[in-house]
Amino acid sequence: MIDPNRTISELKELRSLTADENGAQRIAWTDTWLKAREWFLTKLEGLPVEHHIDAAGNRWVTLRGESEQSLILGSHLDSVPNGGWLDGALGVMAGLEILRRFAAEYEGRPPVTIRLVDWADEEGARFGRSLFGSSAFAGTATIDLDRNRADRDGIRLEDALRRCGIEIDRVGDAQVEQKDARAYLELHIEQGPILERLGLPLATVLGTKGVERHSITFQGQEAHSGSTPMGDRRDALAAAARLALEIYPIAQKHKDAVCTIGSVKTFPGIVTAIVGRCEATLDQRDLDANVLATMLREAQEASERFAGELGCTVEWSRIWNIAPEPFHPDLINRCEESIREIAGTSVRLPSGPLHDAAEVSRVGIPTVMMFVQSLYGISHNKIEDTKEEHLQLAIRAMDRLAAKAAAWVADNAI
Amino acid sequence: MIDPNRTISELKELRSLTADENGAQRIAWTDTWLKAREWFLTKLEGLPVEHHIDAAGNRWVTLRGESEQSLILGSHLDSVPNGGWLDGALGVMAGLEILRRFAAEYEGRPPVTIRLVDWADEEGARFGRSLFGSSAFAGTATIDLDRNRADRDGIRLEDALRRCGIEIDRVGDAQVEQKDARAYLELHIEQGPILERLGLPLATVLGTKGVERHSITFQGQEAHSGSTPMGDRRDALAAAARLALEIYPIAQKHKDAVCTIGSVKTFPGIVTAIVGRCEATLDQRDLDANVLATMLREAQEASERFAGELGCTVEWSRIWNIAPEPFHPDLINRCEESIREIAGTSVRLPSGPLHDAAEVSRVGIPTVMMFVQSLYGISHNKIEDTKEEHLQLAIRAMDRLAAKAAAWVADNAI
Repeated sequence: MIDPNRTISELKELRSLTADENGAQRIAWTDTWLKAREWFLTKLEGLPVEHHIDAAGNRWVTLRGESEQSLILGSHLDSVPNGGWLDGALGVMAGLEILRRFAAEYEGRPPVTIRLVDWADEEGARFGRSLFGSSAFAGTATIDLDRNRADRDGIRLEDALRRCGIEIDRVGDAQVEQKDARAYLELHIEQGPILERLGLPLATVLGTKGVERHSITFQGQEAHSGSTPMGDRRDALAAAARLALEIYPIAQKHKDAVCTIGSVKTFPGIVTAIVGRCEATLDQRDLDANVLATMLREAQEASERFAGELGCTVEWSRIWNIAPEPFHPDLINRCEESIREIAGTSVRLPSGPLHDAAEVSRVGIPTVMMFVQSLYGISHNKIEDTKEEHLQLAIRAMDRLAAKAAAWVADNAI
Repeated sequence: MIDPNRTISELKELRSLTADENGAQRIAWTDTWLKAREWFLTKLEGLPVEHHIDAAGNRWVTLRGESEQSLILGSHLDSVPNGGWLDGALGVMAGLEILRRFAAEYEGRPPVTIRLVDWADEEGARFGRSLFGSSAFAGTATIDLDRNRADRDGIRLEDALRRCGIEIDRVGDAQVEQKDARAYLELHIEQGPILERLGLPLATVLGTKGVERHSITFQGQEAHSGSTPMGDRRDALAAAARLALEIYPIAQKHKDAVCTIGSVKTFPGIVTAIVGRCEATLDQRDLDANVLATMLREAQEASERFAGELGCTVEWSRIWNIAPEPFHPDLINRCEESIREIAGTSVRLPSGPLHDAAEVSRVGIPTVMMFVQSLYGISHNKIEDTKEEHLQLAIRAMDRLAAKAAAWVADNAI
């Protein structure tokens, strides 16, 4: 029998071990993260499992079944600085509880192999490269780009990895873990306000939205705030301000689409000068690739129109992008059934945040995620929280889904 | 006879002595500024003048006349970092040429006393306190506020002054220099685009605009860019963006009024988070105190309306303000006559930038300023420039004005 309360008390134990007064500090490749992973190992004692760390730092726990074909449950123990107690850790610890249930139910030998993975550095909080471990698993690692990333103290990613026993040139070898993988499930907090607003505990996740992320620079003319008439100004901030407002109608034409300007920098940025240069970032997301492309084109056209009307120029530079990743329809249906059986009502949502599940899905491994309600829609913050009754429902629904998915893997054995 | 070309060649000599490839570096209280002042002293050799540095670091050069009652010509040798060759220096060097003309014309003894002042630290570039020397002269120094100002290397104003022989607790003694002051004249580059657009070389300055300078903080809610629907956002940047656009209609209701948002900072300021807090600066200026008060009220009301509509709050904090300072009507008329006589056409303008003249006028010393055209409206930049033919007209018109003002001082002798 699954014991959701054991998982909740383990999550609290992990919090007391790895959080300070500002929140969780399990930043990947740090001592606190290593401590969390050591603690996790102690929880495997007595279980009939094997475990190892792969070439990219992902930890794999394997409960061998009658078949080599495997169902994978996963998430990440790493957090952002000053993070919450559930983001990532919930999925790993729920997965462990489900692994225990499979081991007990089948006396250590379930029909298919059940694996639990703790992905390395999902957050990318220290070196700016998120989904590090899962992208290595998927074969989409970008080592040449990432090798020289450094943290704010100037420590290079390559050196931080080596300290944890990982050689950066070999992280691609983590692809061997794809062998016999037939399905992947991930439970995560929603990190948004939708379930709370709907009054529902759980959602079936349809996929992860694609992302277009750009840096936008408006160039006008720096000039003295006191001596330059309003009509003679080439105010780069005014152009950026128009774009900061225009992204709302651009996104709101489409259900679930989002556009965000998260950073604006003004140069010279002093009280007595008109802004000569304004740098902004734009993040756009949707589950539909066509919607995403339309929003990008509309934002670019709007920025050029505003720049032209205000005597400025504008340049765009792509920071990063990723295609939408729709999840597997059979697993989506099973996830929805599981939620209905445990909680009565399910809803289908796309995920705005990226997750390791997107990397797994991208290589063709059937994947689905389940979301549990986040209070206040807040994450990446120490006030991140979820009601305990919702955590209990989530762990039970996820266990139900794992049972259905294991049966599906067995039925679809190659 | 006045020799404008001598002044222009002296200004070029000063530039070669104190500028690098990025522009003028005569920042007050630095070695380069001290070098500029030493160089200036060499230009006094052979002139029948006395000179000294007052308690606030202002340098006074005095050509004693038949009467103690004095006409003061002034400006400043200090510059911003990477500044232009004319901002400040033009007024000092033109004043020196006019002093030479008075000395020659009256064989060292003009009817009234003629003084030239090189104000200390007009720009406030290093410690953020502009009009330092002239405010000490005027008795409006703010020593208790300024004492602990530090530059970006952590050097305190008090210590930087001491290194230049100035004791911060005694700067108020510079008020003794007010004695017998009966008129003050200052020639300066316009630092704006109006004269260039009008095709005129010179302007009579009506006064300096009052300034209201505030820091405005919009507080919304930081949230994940991917998981927060557009309609659920409390986007502090959107509120600031609406204000950045609204200041245009607020200012444009009034001739010559200006409003500028020069700095915007976003927090947390990362590409993946909705802006939870946005800090902006607002600088508002007009020559009419009622217009200034109206613009401030309208900006405050607009900011509250925008914050309310976007689920944010807003707080205002005054950084600094100064009342408008209209110049003396008799001297305004004489300035206009002088410009007409030398250049044919005059125009009257308020000054958006502050000048030491405002501090002098504020204590009741009749004051006027003359502007000469700035190319491209640019200052505080190495590309700041003025046509040599306009510099020649400016020095000649200023000499004409000084003659009229000296006669006016004599006629109005107390």
